[in-house]
Amino acid sequence: MTLKLGVIGAGAIGQDHIRRCMQTLSGGRITAVNDINSETAASAVRKYAVDATVVLDPHTLIRSNDVDAVIVTSWGPSHEEFVLSAIETGKFVFCEKPLATTADACRRIVDAEMKHGQRLVQVGFMRPYDPGYRALKAVVDSGKIGDPLMLHCAHRNPRVGKYYTTDMAITDTLIHELHVLRWLLSDDYISAQVIYPRKTSQALAHLRDPQIALLETAKGTRIDVEIFVNCQYGYDIQCEIVGELGIARLPEPSAVPLRSQAARSEAILTDWKERFIGAYDIEMQDFIDGVREGKLRGPHAWSGYCAAVAADACVAAQTSGAVVPIDLPAQPAFYA
Amino acid sequence: MTLKLGVIGAGAIGQDHIRRCMQTLSGGRITAVNDINSETAASAVRKYAVDATVVLDPHTLIRSNDVDAVIVTSWGPSHEEFVLSAIETGKFVFCEKPLATTADACRRIVDAEMKHGQRLVQVGFMRPYDPGYRALKAVVDSGKIGDPLMLHCAHRNPRVGKYYTTDMAITDTLIHELHVLRWLLSDDYISAQVIYPRKTSQALAHLRDPQIALLETAKGTRIDVEIFVNCQYGYDIQCEIVGELGIARLPEPSAVPLRSQAARSEAILTDWKERFIGAYDIEMQDFIDGVREGKLRGPHAWSGYCAAVAADACVAAQTSGAVVPIDLPAQPAFYA
Amino acid sequence: MTLKLGVIGAGAIGQDHIRRCMQTLSGGRITAVNDINSETAASAVRKYAVDATVVLDPHTLIRSNDVDAVIVTSWGPSHEEFVLSAIETGKFVFCEKPLATTADACRRIVDAEMKHGQRLVQVGFMRPYDPGYRALKAVVDSGKIGDPLMLHCAHRNPRVGKYYTTDMAITDTLIHELHVLRWLLSDDYISAQVIYPRKTSQALAHLRDPQIALLETAKGTRIDVEIFVNCQYGYDIQCEIVGELGIARLPEPSAVPLRSQAARSEAILTDWKERFIGAYDIEMQDFIDGVREGKLRGPHAWSGYCAAVAADACVAAQTSGAVVPIDLPAQPAFYA
Amino acid sequence: MTLKLGVIGAGAIGQDHIRRCMQTLSGGRITAVNDINSETAASAVRKYAVDATVVLDPHTLIRSNDVDAVIVTSWGPSHEEFVLSAIETGKFVFCEKPLATTADACRRIVDAEMKHGQRLVQVGFMRPYDPGYRALKAVVDSGKIGDPLMLHCAHRNPRVGKYYTTDMAITDTLIHELHVLRWLLSDDYISAQVIYPRKTSQALAHLRDPQIALLETAKGTRIDVEIFVNCQYGYDIQCEIVGELGIARLPEPSAVPLRSQAARSEAILTDWKERFIGAYDIEMQDFIDGVREGKLRGPHAWSGYCAAVAADACVAAQTSGAVVPIDLPAQPAFYA
Repeated sequence: MTLKLGVIGAGAIGQDHIRRCMQTLSGGRITAVNDINSETAASAVRKYAVDATVVLDPHTLIRSNDVDAVIVTSWGPSHEEFVLSAIETGKFVFCEKPLATTADACRRIVDAEMKHGQRLVQVGFMRPYDPGYRALKAVVDSGKIGDPLMLHCAHRNPRVGKYYTTDMAITDTLIHELHVLRWLLSDDYISAQVIYPRKTSQALAHLRDPQIALLETAKGTRIDVEIFVNCQYGYDIQCEIVGELGIARLPEPSAVPLRSQAARSEAILTDWKERFIGAYDIEMQDFIDGVREGKLRGPHAWSGYCAAVAADACVAAQTSGAVVPIDLPAQPAFYA
Repeated sequence: MTLKLGVIGAGAIGQDHIRRCMQTLSGGRITAVNDINSETAASAVRKYAVDATVVLDPHTLIRSNDVDAVIVTSWGPSHEEFVLSAIETGKFVFCEKPLATTADACRRIVDAEMKHGQRLVQVGFMRPYDPGYRALKAVVDSGKIGDPLMLHCAHRNPRVGKYYTTDMAITDTLIHELHVLRWLLSDDYISAQVIYPRKTSQALAHLRDPQIALLETAKGTRIDVEIFVNCQYGYDIQCEIVGELGIARLPEPSAVPLRSQAARSEAILTDWKERFIGAYDIEMQDFIDGVREGKLRGPHAWSGYCAAVAADACVAAQTSGAVVPIDLPAQPAFYA
Repeated sequence: MTLKLGVIGAGAIGQDHIRRCMQTLSGGRITAVNDINSETAASAVRKYAVDATVVLDPHTLIRSNDVDAVIVTSWGPSHEEFVLSAIETGKFVFCEKPLATTADACRRIVDAEMKHGQRLVQVGFMRPYDPGYRALKAVVDSGKIGDPLMLHCAHRNPRVGKYYTTDMAITDTLIHELHVLRWLLSDDYISAQVIYPRKTSQALAHLRDPQIALLETAKGTRIDVEIFVNCQYGYDIQCEIVGELGIARLPEPSAVPLRSQAARSEAILTDWKERFIGAYDIEMQDFIDGVREGKLRGPHAWSGYCAAVAADACVAAQTSGAVVPIDLPAQPAFYA
Repeated sequence: MTLKLGVIGAGAIGQDHIRRCMQTLSGGRITAVNDINSETAASAVRKYAVDATVVLDPHTLIRSNDVDAVIVTSWGPSHEEFVLSAIETGKFVFCEKPLATTADACRRIVDAEMKHGQRLVQVGFMRPYDPGYRALKAVVDSGKIGDPLMLHCAHRNPRVGKYYTTDMAITDTLIHELHVLRWLLSDDYISAQVIYPRKTSQALAHLRDPQIALLETAKGTRIDVEIFVNCQYGYDIQCEIVGELGIARLPEPSAVPLRSQAARSEAILTDWKERFIGAYDIEMQDFIDGVREGKLRGPHAWSGYCAAVAADACVAAQTSGAVVPIDLPAQPAFYA
């Protein structure tokens, strides 16, 4: 049976998931679309020629018999409400990151899901679906480089707009590393520190850029992440794992090796949307497959909660300059 | 409307396309399966839990109202018969390579299709769907390296079995280059020569291995292709284009950069099936999309015919040792 | 006129310089050799068939008319005495690193040299002579990557013996980075912090390994240096400079690219002596040329002093865990 | 004893060797300089402040008691005369490539040297001294890639002037490969073929560019060398050896890895003089050391003769378009 999917939030990312489910993936189709602006929803339905109903009330969509599972791509602050509503209805829900805008809200979702007794929530962190990160994790898990001791990472954007504030380096940018590195290491953070290098002249006055986040894990692994959102030269994600026996690195995106004008070169992407484009497809296919099998395998609510707690600590560290402890409860067996 | 697909030939590659259409791709489903051995067909249907009929006669399958388009993955010598039958019925058909086992048979398909008046045939050459080759072609077409003057290519397999004969270096191995390089260069071959380097001690007694094919195109571009099917170290496809202004190269498959045991290294694939695995998905999705839009974009029958003619010349050159001319008619406007 | 060189200290490194001056370099020859063990001196003279006198007293060697310039390769604690003696005699002196074992001793050398009124001392830091570092500095100085903001460095040895203690990670290992990065950036350190990642199981019980040193410069550049002396896989020196406009990296040592056994690979050196072997030659040739022209260009006493001061701060930071300020006087015009 | 060297030919390359012997290398000094234009000789002597006599007659220089060994860097057509003269006098002689301008002349030198009974001649082919080629040969000789079966090579220059004619692609350019590949493989050529790809629009009207030389060796190894002297993008020397078990490649010259302007890149040299600059030093030092020890190890007259014979065959192949046999006598034991 083809899975019937209802989408809440028909903005850019919502439309992207609609297109993906209708034109690229297997096993699901969009049957209902909601947006706070009903014309936006209607327009998305027309744009992709989807045989779907525009539903004015998101909770009606969630409860609809024509909807087997829900995709939440609305404004961040509304995530908690819709995800909790889906859990209450007993429906599977894919929620774009962040799971919720505060650690407490994430925790409420975790609690509701555990109370329900079955995993229903997949959080839209796509990096664990990136073939590069998967290959890197396979190397780590193989034992080939021994136990990880240090990670040297970088998250670089060519530039950001006025809207981007110093704390967004954590909540919007580092949040991806906070999620994926925990998954990569099968480990938890215990402290965070943020240091500010010399500011680049390419950043706007209100923004501290670059920044370096220093994280420590329960196993003692030390992580440094350079966050540099006006690096000019490209969108570049780096991750190097130094283990007891060797070093493994995230592969570079594939590019044509060129020799021209006195240089050997390979292009670097400049648009973040292209970097993980394959991962988005695999992520959503995995959600659809998981729902159809009754068993989700993707990023769970607990991992969304942990990322939120770590982000809070990093934001505190931005201000205090001190080493901020991160105190996470043990991961419930429910999420094992 | 979901496209109803009938499969003729339920061996390994047929099953792979069944799995692909049912579990990975969008817009199509398998409704009928035929195999010369009906138990093989039935077993494939069960294996993927497909809601499809086992049809005993392939021509009945082609004419069935429950089949919108046909996928031919049967034994090579049967391709001509089934493709011609599909054209006669006016149905779209995806035919695994080779389009037919002789150039004459390919030509008969071309003639039938042109007589029908609309493109119905897509040949299963998957390399033009490989993201690496597409990126390489984009560089060539951009003019960044100027007009291509020379191509240095290699097609290497770790090893081959007893069944593999010297001419198969052309008909089974080089055939992929013969197709994809013509597409890459938008050019036609005019001559072929084959030279035999010192034979590797790793090859069986009956096989000349390695071989080097030298091709010349209508525009004067010179191509050398090393064919080495017992290279031991991996499955490795190389393509370097030397242009008037610079050089572009086929990207290596993505791999995790490692530092361990006194070496920096990246893994090389050893199984050819993994090398173009993504390309197979894109290829078949493009066929499904093309059929639904009534307009195929993939490798056409004429390109299958050209590859067959060039392969014949290379096989002749293997024996004669001479430079063998390749005489192709101009590509009909029908295939423009 | 060929320069007459006297060597004090005929151990491994002293012998290496003797061989170098006699067999590889131009413009100098060894005329006198001293060692605390006169038999060692005599043996070195015999080994390289040098026409040189074994001199029992180092100060006699320094004052000898048969010695134009002195090479000090004796035990570290004796460096100060011999360098000061050479300055007193008004002779040029090449002193292996460290210039002296304490910052205060280095300062006394600086003061003596300034009092003498002419540069006489070159310190044996060879990295600024490494073609890779020189090329990297040329890129930085060209402005191509804009002002440096961050440096990510690593100093990795395959393994160390029992003698190697936790503070030697600073005084023996990091000392090279402390010197070369200051030169690379034309900047001064203002603070140091040391953090301890999870300890590798490959290190002996008494040793904290790996360590990460965090440095801040007067211009605000932030430097992280991974020090990992039991990394197993090789001797590996990394230096990446993140600038406002781009990133430049220390080149890898040249190695033959191989494809074999399912991997693309290049060898990593395992012996530190090979890594900078070319740099030692260039360094000593520059000393000889500098002496003959009466004008030294290599690492001066002030840079040796600065490295010593920074090392002291790092050792303090190892113990305290805190950010330790580094307070350097402005570089005297004498050393500009 | 310092070796007394006499130079015949004080043009660019002669001056370069004078500078090298005086300022960089160990164990030799220039004592006499001759040039067909005595003012050129005098000017070279002044330029490097050499304590050397300008000798008007080259044969007088060769016989002079103040000259232990001769460096011949005069015009190619004069090489034979001066090398034979040196042999007659029983003096060691370093002769820049070509050893002589015809194979017959080379043969006369070989015969004279064998008659003399001791190796006296080193030919100025510097590539066997390049650390990259040496490392490549070490890999081949280690057996790691098994017996060589094929070589894919390229010799590319950014551009050439009007003086450069089609046959110079062999006599001036390919000659280096003809020499170094024979050394690399410890093998002899048995045939040559030249094919002409589409001509680049960047070449002058009179010049066929690029060209591809196809060589076969006595062991059956097949070599293809692309010669492309208007490739625009840089001076680029490629050599890939395909063996029975794996592939080894000439290392790229070291360059700083950059990330900037949406590309990862490394500079390619554009000036051929920089490419093998280190090799020239090692080559001449080896000549000096060899003379002092009475035993030359560098490229011998026989290898110069073989390169000349192979070049003749390639030039014949340029015109005939056919496969031209190369018939070399077995290498005399004298040169083993």
